[in-house]
Parts: sequence; C-alpha cells; structure tokens
Amino acid sequence: MAGNSFGTLFKLTTFGESHGAGIGGIIDGCPAGLKIDQDFIQSELARRKPGQSHITTQRKEDDTLEFLSGIFEGFSTGTPIAFIVRNEDQKPKDYSHLKDNYRPSHADFTYDQKYGIRDYRGGGRSSARETIARVVAGAIAKLLLKEKNITVEAFVKQVGKIKLHKNHNELDLSKTDSNIVRCPDQNIANDMISHIEEIKKQGDTVGGIIQCVIKNSPVGLGEPVFDKLNAALGNAMLGINAVKGFEIGSGFDCVNYKGSELNDIFLPGTSIGNVSTQTNNSGGIQGGISNGMPIYFNIAFKPVATIMQKQQSVNNKGEEITLEAKGRHDPCVLPRAVPIVESMAALVMADFLLLSRSNKL
Amino acid sequence: MAGNSFGTLFKLTTFGESHGAGIGGIIDGCPAGLKIDQDFIQSELARRKPGQSHITTQRKEDDTLEFLSGIFEGFSTGTPIAFIVRNEDQKPKDYSHLKDNYRPSHADFTYDQKYGIRDYRGGGRSSARETIARVVAGAIAKLLLKEKNITVEAFVKQVGKIKLHKNHNELDLSKTDSNIVRCPDQNIANDMISHIEEIKKQGDTVGGIIQCVIKNSPVGLGEPVFDKLNAALGNAMLGINAVKGFEIGSGFDCVNYKGSELNDIFLPGTSIGNVSTQTNNSGGIQGGISNGMPIYFNIAFKPVATIMQKQQSVNNKGEEITLEAKGRHDPCVLPRAVPIVESMAALVMADFLLLSRSNKL
Amino acid sequence: MAGNSFGTLFKLTTFGESHGAGIGGIIDGCPAGLKIDQDFIQSELARRKPGQSHITTQRKEDDTLEFLSGIFEGFSTGTPIAFIVRNEDQKPKDYSHLKDNYRPSHADFTYDQKYGIRDYRGGGRSSARETIARVVAGAIAKLLLKEKNITVEAFVKQVGKIKLHKNHNELDLSKTDSNIVRCPDQNIANDMISHIEEIKKQGDTVGGIIQCVIKNSPVGLGEPVFDKLNAALGNAMLGINAVKGFEIGSGFDCVNYKGSELNDIFLPGTSIGNVSTQTNNSGGIQGGISNGMPIYFNIAFKPVATIMQKQQSVNNKGEEITLEAKGRHDPCVLPRAVPIVESMAALVMADFLLLSRSNKL
Amino acid sequence: MAGNSFGTLFKLTTFGESHGAGIGGIIDGCPAGLKIDQDFIQSELARRKPGQSHITTQRKEDDTLEFLSGIFEGFSTGTPIAFIVRNEDQKPKDYSHLKDNYRPSHADFTYDQKYGIRDYRGGGRSSARETIARVVAGAIAKLLLKEKNITVEAFVKQVGKIKLHKNHNELDLSKTDSNIVRCPDQNIANDMISHIEEIKKQGDTVGGIIQCVIKNSPVGLGEPVFDKLNAALGNAMLGINAVKGFEIGSGFDCVNYKGSELNDIFLPGTSIGNVSTQTNNSGGIQGGISNGMPIYFNIAFKPVATIMQKQQSVNNKGEEITLEAKGRHDPCVLPRAVPIVESMAALVMADFLLLSRSNKL
Repeated sequence: MAGNSFGTLFKLTTFGESHGAGIGGIIDGCPAGLKIDQDFIQSELARRKPGQSHITTQRKEDDTLEFLSGIFEGFSTGTPIAFIVRNEDQKPKDYSHLKDNYRPSHADFTYDQKYGIRDYRGGGRSSARETIARVVAGAIAKLLLKEKNITVEAFVKQVGKIKLHKNHNELDLSKTDSNIVRCPDQNIANDMISHIEEIKKQGDTVGGIIQCVIKNSPVGLGEPVFDKLNAALGNAMLGINAVKGFEIGSGFDCVNYKGSELNDIFLPGTSIGNVSTQTNNSGGIQGGISNGMPIYFNIAFKPVATIMQKQQSVNNKGEEITLEAKGRHDPCVLPRAVPIVESMAALVMADFLLLSRSNKL
Repeated sequence: MAGNSFGTLFKLTTFGESHGAGIGGIIDGCPAGLKIDQDFIQSELARRKPGQSHITTQRKEDDTLEFLSGIFEGFSTGTPIAFIVRNEDQKPKDYSHLKDNYRPSHADFTYDQKYGIRDYRGGGRSSARETIARVVAGAIAKLLLKEKNITVEAFVKQVGKIKLHKNHNELDLSKTDSNIVRCPDQNIANDMISHIEEIKKQGDTVGGIIQCVIKNSPVGLGEPVFDKLNAALGNAMLGINAVKGFEIGSGFDCVNYKGSELNDIFLPGTSIGNVSTQTNNSGGIQGGISNGMPIYFNIAFKPVATIMQKQQSVNNKGEEITLEAKGRHDPCVLPRAVPIVESMAALVMADFLLLSRSNKL
Repeated sequence: MAGNSFGTLFKLTTFGESHGAGIGGIIDGCPAGLKIDQDFIQSELARRKPGQSHITTQRKEDDTLEFLSGIFEGFSTGTPIAFIVRNEDQKPKDYSHLKDNYRPSHADFTYDQKYGIRDYRGGGRSSARETIARVVAGAIAKLLLKEKNITVEAFVKQVGKIKLHKNHNELDLSKTDSNIVRCPDQNIANDMISHIEEIKKQGDTVGGIIQCVIKNSPVGLGEPVFDKLNAALGNAMLGINAVKGFEIGSGFDCVNYKGSELNDIFLPGTSIGNVSTQTNNSGGIQGGISNGMPIYFNIAFKPVATIMQKQQSVNNKGEEITLEAKGRHDPCVLPRAVPIVESMAALVMADFLLLSRSNKL
Repeated sequence: MAGNSFGTLFKLTTFGESHGAGIGGIIDGCPAGLKIDQDFIQSELARRKPGQSHITTQRKEDDTLEFLSGIFEGFSTGTPIAFIVRNEDQKPKDYSHLKDNYRPSHADFTYDQKYGIRDYRGGGRSSARETIARVVAGAIAKLLLKEKNITVEAFVKQVGKIKLHKNHNELDLSKTDSNIVRCPDQNIANDMISHIEEIKKQGDTVGGIIQCVIKNSPVGLGEPVFDKLNAALGNAMLGINAVKGFEIGSGFDCVNYKGSELNDIFLPGTSIGNVSTQTNNSGGIQGGISNGMPIYFNIAFKPVATIMQKQQSVNNKGEEITLEAKGRHDPCVLPRAVPIVESMAALVMADFLLLSRSNKL
C-alpha cells in the first residue's frame, strides 16, 4: 500500500515520472468481453493534453498511447490491461535549479523529506503528467459504464469569482466541449476565458470549481459503512493534484437550511422501481448507497502553484533563496482537469458496479 | 471489500446494528506495547453518547465498553483488539411503521434495494450508533499518536448560520469541551446553543461545520498518488453519516485568490528540519504528504433527517404515505460528532504513521 | 495487514486468545438473503470441540456460539456478521511456568521476540482454540456453497504410518463421521484408533494426513496469476497450526510419472459444458482455475508439540531449563482438524465464487 | 483482486502475454534509497531464459529489460518501479490449431470458460513467459534483502526418481549454478542431465523437486493467524505454473515421527538473542513466525504438459480431436524454475520484512 493503486475489483496501478521513460499503468480486473474503443480513449487523452488552446500551457506533447497487454482482437480478455504513453521531447534540459531548491506549495520539500531522494526533473512523480494514466483507465471505465447506460460528465462551474449559477439539470452538458474552457454556458464561458487571459498576462494563476454529474446509476452502489459511494468519490477527487475541497448534493450550503427544508421527499411510482425524489439535496446517494437519482458533486481546485513571478523560498539546507519559474505553464488548470475528474469518477463507479454483484445470494 | 473495514496497517473492522446485540469492532495491527488507558477510552465514549446535554437527544444509553482480546496486563499485545458495547434498554418496541416505509433522506430505501432485506429497527446498521466502534478505535489510535506527541482536536465552527470566524490558531482548543456545543469561543457557543434550542422547539433540525486540527504531525505522512493524506482524511470524513462536504487548508475559498496570493512561502530555518511556511493555505499537506505544519480541515454536516414533523414519503410498493417521527432525536448532531471526527482523523494518522515506516531502506 | 483477516469479498477477521474473554470474528461480505442455519453451525463446532472422544483431549468446553450482528429474522442482511464463543471454565490457574519459558516447537519464543510481550496463558493467540472462529465462518461459507450445490468434505487419510490407500472416489465420504477418528473406511479407522491409544499411553503424539474433496465446483473459479485457486487453498491450509505440507491432485507423486502418463485427457461431451477428463491428476484445477472436476488435496499435520514427557528448553534469558507439560492434550489432532480443513476450504471457495462474478461483462 | 498482484507493502503487479507486446510489471512499495544493480537483475533473467542449455527449450529469447520509472541516478525513489521485457521474434505464426482446441492439462479450457475469450497464441497469459516479471521483481527484492544480509537460494533436489538425499546444510549451494541442471552435487547432477536427455529423446517430459533455503532471516517475520510466513511462502510457490506440492521443514515426512522425535529442542545461548534449535524440523518457522533458523521448503513440479506426442483431446464444441505439439519445449522445467522459486521467496521475505516494522510501538 504505497499509494499507486486505486480500486478493489476494477483496479488501476500507475507508474511514471514527467521526465522518465513515460507514464502508464495496469488495469487489473476489467471484465472480459469489453470492446476497447481506442479512438475514444485517444480522444479522452486529447481533452487532457497540454497545448490544446491558448488558455492552457503551450507545451506540445503528443501523448501517443500504446497498449501492452490484455486486449485481443479488440476486446478485453480479463487479463491485466497495461499501457504506456512515452515521454517525448526530452531535451537534456538543465533542471539543476530544482535539484536543491523547493518551490512554494509544490511537493518538492515533502517528497525529499519522505523518501530522502527525488526525481526533481519537471516535478517527477508529482507532476500533473501522471494523470495521463488516470485518463486512459478512466476512459476504459467509461466504456464499461456505457454498457450499463451510465454517463459521467463534468464541466467547469467556476473560474476565480466567475460562476455558473445554474443547476446541472438546467444545462445542456453536451455543450461542455464546445468551448475551450469547458463550461456549457457560452456566455459564462466567454467571461471565464477573458479572465484567464487576464490572469495569464499577470504571470499569475487562478483556480475554480468543477462539477461532475453521473446519470443512470443503478440503485444500490456503495458499500457502507466506510466505503460509502460519496466517500469513495471524495477520496478519488481529493487525490487529484491541487484539489482543496469536495462537496456532494447540497454540500457546504446544507448549513443554510433546516432539516424540513433539505429532506428529499420520495415521490410515489407505479412500483418501488420507479420512485424518485422531489428534490435531490442528497446528491443521488443516501446512507452511502446510490438511490437512482443523478449523483453530482463539486470539486475546488486551487490556482496552479507555478507562477511566472519571483518567489522567496528555501533550499534543502533550509537557507533562503529566490525562485523564478521557467517554461510554459497553465494559468488555469480547470479546462484540462475536466476529463481527469470524469475519469476518477468513472473508475469509482466501475469498481462499485462490480462490487455490487456480491450484494445478494 | 464490503465496506466495514478501515485502514491498511492499523485496520478497524466494525459490526453491529442499533437494536441487535451491540456495536463493536476489531482493531488489527495495533503495534504491541501500547498502554491501553481504558478510562480515556470510556471518556471519549462519553463525549459521543446521547443524553449528555439538553441540546442532544434525550435517549439514555450507558455505552459500557468490554474489551474481548488483544490486551494483556494493560498493554496491547500485537494481536487483534476486539471490543463490544452491548445495546441496552431494548424494549420490545413496535417498529412496524418502519418495516415497509421509507423515511425521507434516510438509508431505508437504499438498503432495502441493495440487499433485498434490512433490519429496520432503529435504522439498523445505518444508525449513528454505529459510530461507537469508531470512537473506541479512534481513542486507541489517539493513544498511539500521543506516543509521538501528535494531537487531534476538533470543534464546532458553525451551526446553521452562526459561525466562528476565527482561525484555529487564534483559538484555545482546550476550551472546546467547556460548553455543551463544543465551540471553543464561549460567546459564539452561547449563540449556537440558543439557536439549537429554537430549532428543537420547531421540531426541526440544523446542520453545521466542524473543524479538525492535527498538530505535530511528522513530515512525510501520506502515500502519493492515490492515497494522499488529504484524500484519506476526506474519505474518512465523508464516510461519517450526514457529511456533505470536506475541505482542507484554503478549501473552497481558494477560488477567491490568485496563485501569487495563495502560495505558502517557505521560511528559512537553521536546517531543513525546522523550515516552516509563512501561511498555511496548503493545510499542512503538499503533494499529498504532510509538511509538518498543522493539518486542518472543515466538514459540513447536513441537518439530521429525522424531524418531528409530518412528511410525505413512499412505502416499499412505491405508494404514497405520510410519516411522523417518534422517539427522541438530536436537533443538531454536531456536538456529538466532534469525537467522531477526531476518531476518524486519528485512525488515518495512525495508519499513515505505520505506513511511513516503509518509506526508506 | 496483520494477519487476522482472510478473503477478499467474503472476508473473515478473527480475534481472541485461549484465556481471554473468548474467540470470535466478523464476516464481512456475506451476501444478503442467506438462511443462517444455527443448528448446523453449532453441529460443526461440535465436530471441532475437545472432549468429543477418548482419543482427543479430555478438556470439556461447551463452545456456545452467540451471533452479535448481521442476521435478521434468520437471514443474512449483507451487513457484518459478528460472533463470539466465550471462554469458560477459566479457573485462576497458575501459568507462571509458561511466562518466562519457551516450549519446544511452539510459538512462545517467536511471539515474544516479535511483539516483545505475549499472553502466555494457554498459548494465547497461538492456541488451537483460535480455530473456533474459522469453523463458525466456514460453516456459513458452507451454507452459501450449498446454495450452489458445492460440497466440501474432508477425512483422515493417514495417522502415523497407517494409511488409507484408496482414492477419494472409491470411498463413501458420508461415513467419515461414523467413527471417532473420521476415516471413512472402518477397518483402517480401527487401526488408527488403536495406534492413537498406544501413542497416548506413551505420553507422546502422532501426526498424519487429511484429504479434502470439493465437488460440483463451477468451472472458472480462481484468479491467475498470483491467486490461483490451488495457491489460495494451499495458503488456507498452511495457515492452520501444525500443517507442514500441502499437495493437490497428483501432488509430490507427480515426480514419478512422465508427462505422457500424467496429462489429463479431455473426454468429449455433447457440448463443451459437459466435457470431463479421463484422469484427474490436475486435482480439478488447470492454470489456477477450476475445470469442473473434483478438487482434492492432501494436508500433512505434524504431531502435536505438547507431549507428556520432560523436555529440555530455554527461558527468556536464553538459559537452559527443563519443561514438563501439564493438563490434558490431544495425542493426535487430526480427527478434530477435519472440520477446520473443511472450513478453510469453504471460505476459499465462497470468496472465489463471489470474485468470479466479475469475470465477464 | 483479479490475481495479478502479489504482496502488501512490497507489491508486484504484472501484465503481459507470450505473444503480445511484452511482459512486465510494477513494483509499488520498494523503499527509497535502494541501489538498483541492473547487471544483477539481467543476470537473474539469464538464469530463467530459454535456450540456456541443451536440456532446456531451444527457443532463443533475448529478454532485454527496460525500466520505465521509479529509479533515479541508480537508486529507487520510493515511487513505482515499472519495467518491461518486450516480446521479440514474433513471426506471424499460425496458431489457428490452438484457437478452437484445448490442450490436455493446460489452461486453454479453463481460461476460455472463465472469460469467454482468450489470447490463444502461445498460451497467452498462462504462458510460463509470464514469470519474467516475477524474476525481475524478485531480483529487486533480493537486493533489498541483501541489505539485511538475508539470502535466498534454491536448487534442484530431484528430477524424476533421481534424488539428492543430502540435507541443505551438507551442501555447498554456491555450486548450484556450476552445472546446467542446477543441482549442487555434481554426481547427481550428471545423472539428472542424462535422465532429461533420455526423456527428451522420447518426446516426453519429467518433473521433480526444488528446494529453497533462506538464511539469516531475522526473528519475527510472519503475521499470524492467516498470514503465517509458511502460508505466504506456500501461496507464493503454488502460484507458479506446474507446482503440485509444497512442504516446509519436516514436511510430509512428519507423519513418520512422534512428537518426542520431531520437536526442535532449544539450545541455550548467552542471551535470548542467540538461542538456536538442535534440529530444525520446523523449517525456521514456529507459529507462523520466523525463529532465526534457516527456512527451507520443497516444491514439486509436475512434468511439463506439452509433449512431443499425439494426444487425444476436445475442441470448444466438446468434440474429440487429436493434437500434436509444435515448436520447441522444455523436457524438464526445473533448471529454469530455480530463479523463479527464489524470486517468489524473495518477494515474500521483502514484504514481511516491511510488515514487521509495525510489530512494536
């Protein structure tokens, strides 16, 4: 248990550093017989990759995916699915300024103290490039969920103080990818883009909120007591770099209402199979178990720690230094984080879908 | 993996329903040689138990703890520590009104659909009484952490809209238990108590926010990539009944600042061993690994779903019914949730402390 | 991972020492809806308990089982099934002779060195009394397997040099419990009983071999590469006290044959669903996966280490001492080990049955 | 839990099929700071590879190892160590004879039934080529053990009926690799080689026994109750293809002795730290925990199932067919299995070494 595996039955184990041979992983437990749509997976990678627009980092990476095992004649075989995206364009750069120095609000200091050694080139293991493996595995999880008609869709809800105030069911989520910031409301999207452009000019960065919505979940996913579906989703999201908060359903806003105002009243159906709730403050999960209503949650991303400004810091002797970032970085990570959020959510749902097969005799 | 175990090396597995024989658990992996202070553990249970004040439920439960194994002559032996708190006062009540009916925003519907059967008496496994096992195990984890000088302290920061606006380092957390609402600021505490009294009169319920602070954590706890310390803490908190949100460090407020404003600048020390950060927006964790600064996070609890008012709902045939709660319930769960939050945090810290022993050769 | 849990989806965690409060466990992951036949479970405990015949230890223990959770109106609910058998007849004995002294071929020395402390009363955690929890959980696993028509039957195949030479399919295994040594061939059973009586008179002990046969396993159980069904069964058996060897199918005898002699030829069927093999040297498992043929394996138990004779040993200072056993012990553990072997095999099969539900889409 | 991971803290997850892109794995949990001696690792692969002598298969495979992550400037960094050995010489062979047909005593039938699909080319995932990943990871585990002076040495003890009757402590294990059959006694080795040559001429195969000896284990490794060190070793060995039996210490021979004859008498020392036992029938493990004496065990390998003779079998419709093997196969797998056995033993020891760090406060 050294932190590089995720899931129980549908399990992903990842590897790789930003300037090593590549980023990859192994999915162990993907059921046999799943059609592996490689075009779809590559298209998910394209949503994550740098250089996709002028408001993301301008680094160019091709992110060519190679599957190494577990797929035969286009279908999963039940054996481990391994994959790698090679790191390219590895010029013999000079990273010596990072070797002994610790960037503020990065993982340099903590990795060095924990392990006594670190691959300091480009952030090493703590680089956001690690999420490539999450997106590949998440795409396969999405293919599995698709077989059950379950959808996982995320979008940018807030950038800095610019916020989309609509509820997810008032939005057309198919429009999320129609603009470069991945906000399904074009007017708000325009404001967000302008704001990011402004922040970028300042050599600064900005954070925001992504909302994720899961529809058509069967009733009964989630393992109480400790592996409630909401807890698993929270764990998945909080494991993404730069995430500072997670809330589900009514979230932190729940403090502003009384129980009588917040309870989700059940509406009758022709059978128990088609009851629903009048409101959905529970966020589709009650007692840690999905109730069939849409599951939705918000994730707060802090501004990227790497800024284009001089900052005071320390080196590995504890001495004061001044740092200045080099290279090309994201002024706002949220547009590229959308597929990562979806991927982690899909991994959770795929795992709990398989776990739920043991509920009953 | 059916959700009733927590942790990897310091692992708790729990059992019990609110109206079965009792609530208990097994701790597997507590290192040998720990002095088990039973008075302390019982005092932690007292902080959780119902009937402790007029703003909690008036049910009386004695919660007498029995250890069943793993302790010899007052010390842990390295073998499993099992324990049970027997359920008492089990009058042959009539619970038939719950048998076929589903209370709004409870787990009745989802348990029934997941398992096809449920112990409907008093909430069964989904009852908050389940947290007894967490508090017992958490108390033992606290004893382990105490050996390393690590403290875990939670307090009520907000009830409804009444909020304590101070930062944790401006507060004297030793005063948390000096009032019945467990808020370390007596003035705010008074307001909170009045508010809960008012809500109770209305037959309604109210939620709020608990903050938890962990001090003296060694640098290096947390297992990137997927088991970041913040993710594990979030998972632990979101697994508590009624929790709707979790945020660490700057939390959701991070969206209101630019990177240049939010980065935690390292302050030099005489050696790398005593550097610190000027601000602590990271919440004591960077790259998923503790950096030695205080770890602090907020947890949002929704209002208790059981209210003393009539509510529309459905039965297990999907037909409309009207429900009315019986018995004595908490108008606000937060004062009693403080030791539960601390317990879950302590379990996480104990586990990651042991895991960190494998970091280096 | 401190060694007191067994299984992944159908998971048992146990606790208890021979002279503590009792022995018990928690089964997490038993599917909901299983009828829990308590008479059957208690009858399985009776097969394990001491004092059942003149060739076992004469200690009397009642082994009264109490279920603590997870069962409602006679059926499993999907929540953890906890149980305890209280230790009785705990006279304030004098165990001081064991406190500082290490019995040969027992776990006294290793527990003390590993943990720095041990409950020395009657063997503590290393006592064979710990197997009570295995038998209770194994009985529930058997009830689950019974729903799928899968049977698990063990019998004593050898005691000392007295050996039953027949193949399991030449035996009527329903006769196993018709004699006190649990050998289904009455003539051999008589010889075994006489031999144990003779050994007992000498104040000595004797080992032997148990064979276990699992019938009606569905094809497809077992998780290659590392969790082959045979490996899981071996692991289960080697975790029983006093076991020194495990072999499946042709076992160690495989060295005496050539490939052409040992291969199991497939016999045609009307469809692939009813093919079988001419021989069954594979022991019902090929490539780590059950093939539908009977699964059978042998387990070697060494003679019980506690003998009624003086033995040289050391104390916890490393000094030479002389030890003499007190109390009443088993001259041969095999008759009582039969239900333990069956229980561990049933736990493995139940777990892999649930795991196999994720094989395909 | 789909069977492709091994270990808890020092954890290996593997992937790959014999005719896919390659064979590889990820080691998660290797402590930071270990010097990764790539020459040693490659030399271990050379001990496993085909074509190394005239008594192994004549296939030529180069087995060039590439590390993909987790190593920086020659040392482990604490992050996942991923690696791959590419499959070479993949001529577009005709494997259609295996597509619909099931070889006797292979995994063809069971894989197809379990998953509904299989990569039939050269055995796919069930190919012995999978063990490459075990050997790479095992070599790294050996490097870790070497830091603690722990050695793991295996040798061929028996081929067919030709048996080395000496105890391991009468042998010079440094001579194991001095002959092609890997038996440290040259005379017996010569007989074994002649026997394999004879078997090969017959187009047949032969099995045998490997013994493995672990020296200098610290006292205290092993996690009772269910994860006894002997059980973990047994599990590791039984997960190797073609293994039919495992015995430790006195093993199956224990049935031939009385307790008084088999008990290992402790010999006094100047302190408890240097006591030893007169005999070592326990095989270095008591109560599931290492006692500091040499750990030794035997593993029985059946003859390779692929023979150069016609065999009757069935196809995937259940119809009778006749099969004839093509290609070049091992007449006896034991010489090449020696490094595999050592590797699995080393993985177990490395994992339990790390686990033991949590024994005490």
